Amino acid sequence: MSELNPASPSDPSPRLMAQLARQTVATLAALTTARKNHWLQLLANALRSESASLVAANQLDLAAAQQAGMAPAMLDRLKLDESRIQSLAGAVDQIRGLVDPVGEVIQGERRPNGLQVSRVRVPLGVVFFIYESRPNVTIDAAALCLKSGNPVILRGGSEAIRTNLALGRLISDTLAAAQLPPNAVQIVNSTDRALVGEFLQLGNLIDLTIPRGGRALIERVTREATMPVLKHFDGVCHVLIDQSADLQMAIDIVINSKCQRPAVCNAAETLLVHAAAAEQLWPPLAAALQQQGVELRGCERARQIVSSTVAASEQDYRTEHGALIMNVRIVESLEQALDHISTYGSGHTDAIVTRCLEAAGTFESRVDSAAVVINASTRFNDGGELGLGAEIGISTDRFHARGPCGLRELTTYKTVIRGTGQVRT
Amino acid sequence: MSELNPASPSDPSPRLMAQLARQTVATLAALTTARKNHWLQLLANALRSESASLVAANQLDLAAAQQAGMAPAMLDRLKLDESRIQSLAGAVDQIRGLVDPVGEVIQGERRPNGLQVSRVRVPLGVVFFIYESRPNVTIDAAALCLKSGNPVILRGGSEAIRTNLALGRLISDTLAAAQLPPNAVQIVNSTDRALVGEFLQLGNLIDLTIPRGGRALIERVTREATMPVLKHFDGVCHVLIDQSADLQMAIDIVINSKCQRPAVCNAAETLLVHAAAAEQLWPPLAAALQQQGVELRGCERARQIVSSTVAASEQDYRTEHGALIMNVRIVESLEQALDHISTYGSGHTDAIVTRCLEAAGTFESRVDSAAVVINASTRFNDGGELGLGAEIGISTDRFHARGPCGLRELTTYKTVIRGTGQVRT
Repeated sequence: MSELNPASPSDPSPRLMAQLARQTVATLAALTTARKNHWLQLLANALRSESASLVAANQLDLAAAQQAGMAPAMLDRLKLDESRIQSLAGAVDQIRGLVDPVGEVIQGERRPNGLQVSRVRVPLGVVFFIYESRPNVTIDAAALCLKSGNPVILRGGSEAIRTNLALGRLISDTLAAAQLPPNAVQIVNSTDRALVGEFLQLGNLIDLTIPRGGRALIERVTREATMPVLKHFDGVCHVLIDQSADLQMAIDIVINSKCQRPAVCNAAETLLVHAAAAEQLWPPLAAALQQQGVELRGCERARQIVSSTVAASEQDYRTEHGALIMNVRIVESLEQALDHISTYGSGHTDAIVTRCLEAAGTFESRVDSAAVVINASTRFNDGGELGLGAEIGISTDRFHARGPCGLRELTTYKTVIRGTGQVRT
Repeated sequence: MSELNPASPSDPSPRLMAQLARQTVATLAALTTARKNHWLQLLANALRSESASLVAANQLDLAAAQQAGMAPAMLDRLKLDESRIQSLAGAVDQIRGLVDPVGEVIQGERRPNGLQVSRVRVPLGVVFFIYESRPNVTIDAAALCLKSGNPVILRGGSEAIRTNLALGRLISDTLAAAQLPPNAVQIVNSTDRALVGEFLQLGNLIDLTIPRGGRALIERVTREATMPVLKHFDGVCHVLIDQSADLQMAIDIVINSKCQRPAVCNAAETLLVHAAAAEQLWPPLAAALQQQGVELRGCERARQIVSSTVAASEQDYRTEHGALIMNVRIVESLEQALDHISTYGSGHTDAIVTRCLEAAGTFESRVDSAAVVINASTRFNDGGELGLGAEIGISTDRFHARGPCGLRELTTYKTVIRGTGQVRT
């Protein structure tokens, strides 16, 4: 695709784009919620009224991708049809409905000397967002960043460049109509990979880089970036079936965690079953999984009980299959389950199914993952499900933000100190 | 100093130290507040009872530094006498009195489907802390990190190595007495600079690096680190005297901001005076500053009004003098003052003295600094003064923590989702 959109001398350089973004920082930080929401309204309207031209642009991307031999699952991710555009517009409406985080007072007190001290949320600054494939992310990211007062530079996947540029025109037109700075949202008009490296060197102009995509992309960005990075690694998530678990609840939760959408990061990869109940619980669990077409890869004990289970390798336990494959291990104790999760897990989302209060408490406090789930599906670790509204991603970092990142996670704060002439003694 | 403590084959390697620290993560995260406070109590007691041997170790550092020609101001920073040890023990007592951030529920709700969702503070992980000169930081950092449940590796200044190792023995002894993991606090037993580079490569074992010291150190750490860094750059702080300012309040605040402790990062470097009142306000301000021995470096207009002012260079406006030198500029408008602050400031702490509500509001919303101060001294941007208790530093980053970093800023959070069998539909 680099041939399609090579960096041309007429394209703005990464440095210029970052400078243009930076020039909008103060204006965006000062925007009222009403003005930001007005733009979001115009954007949702434009998505609905311009859907035909968006579909046409997307058809070109799809045709090129098909010709290049893209796999059907990837083609589906790339596709933007009428109904997906409607849900995209709906997502923008939803972001419009969210509380504006800018200006929120997150802490405040009066000090003994009379100083009034408060911590107030302010935008984070210039965001550089790198993502792959799905063109709906272009609109989500633009809407989330602008609603939280941050200029954003979007660098989408090369296979979606025509769709993204068409979406970019919609964004530009509506920014102009709403009298907002045209450079509040900029789309990199080239699929040249070297440009990404140039952006990553601009730590003095860009405040945050968010890479969303494969492990290789995220590792490259982390290595090269001179600014903070909010990483979105994939998830190796577990469901532990305690000996006290209710069988039907265990089946419901395992099936939902594994099968509802196997390709996403909060889907489960490994099932751990307590040995004390393995004879009773594992065969019906296996049957339910196999009925959904799930391939089972298990430890020796799991294979002894359910012989259709193939042998799991050490590597399987570390792998996000992202498909209808599930690792199974019979564990001798809660302690062994916790060890397994800390050894092989990715600290994303881990669940236990239990009726035992002590086991639930131990699991909750000892599992050091972004989300710890008791008696529910791992699939709930999601911004929408947790009430954050749309999310810019699910952070696998510990620093700044952990788990789903919505509007609040795109802000920082400043301390406001109001006095009447106080000095330090 | 590298000759004094070269890395010897018997010293643990950075990787081993980081691994040993990591092995304590789960234990420290699970410690009750009572047990952590018990250790802090033992540490404070030990500081008081062992002060003589600490002073003796410090004397060796002082003698070596004196022989090496260290400047008197630096020697004073290095010095640990009886009275400083008493205040150090007092600081530990104070940290013991602070609320434990671990386990704090920072958000929580019941979702429409009955899921109970909460965000709970947990420790950040393994901290690598690099600092210079002042040996009291060794104790502060150990106390803050352990109270927030984080193992820490301390790498102090080479000139303080004997003092730091003596403090390290006290820390080890009291950890043992409190039956806490001996590797919860480790002190790098070598002043070999290459070791720092090795630590910075251990992004898979160390969760956060905090460098505190000169710009060169922080820049090196930021460049080399493979884990998040909480930077503590110095401050180029401003005081703006609005035309409506009360003269006496202006004098009090400027003198306190500049002179109370000129070497620290929240001391003011530049005085901005509104042109409309420059004739009335600037001469008495200049007289008050000169009476405190402050050298004035000003713009042309400032020099016309107060002829003893020497010419300020462009570079002066960007410089943290850290001494009794103050830049002065007469600004034509609030707008010009805001421009000056955003051009030359470091986003640390900026103050306005005004009686005008509109000017105060504009200054508060438009100045994008970690702390914005209305009618008070810049010196209040300090963990202790703001009620955070002791601080591990004052972050000049926007990411994760901005401004004074206390116990809370050494934590992250996890999401706990409690259900009764819910699955996603």
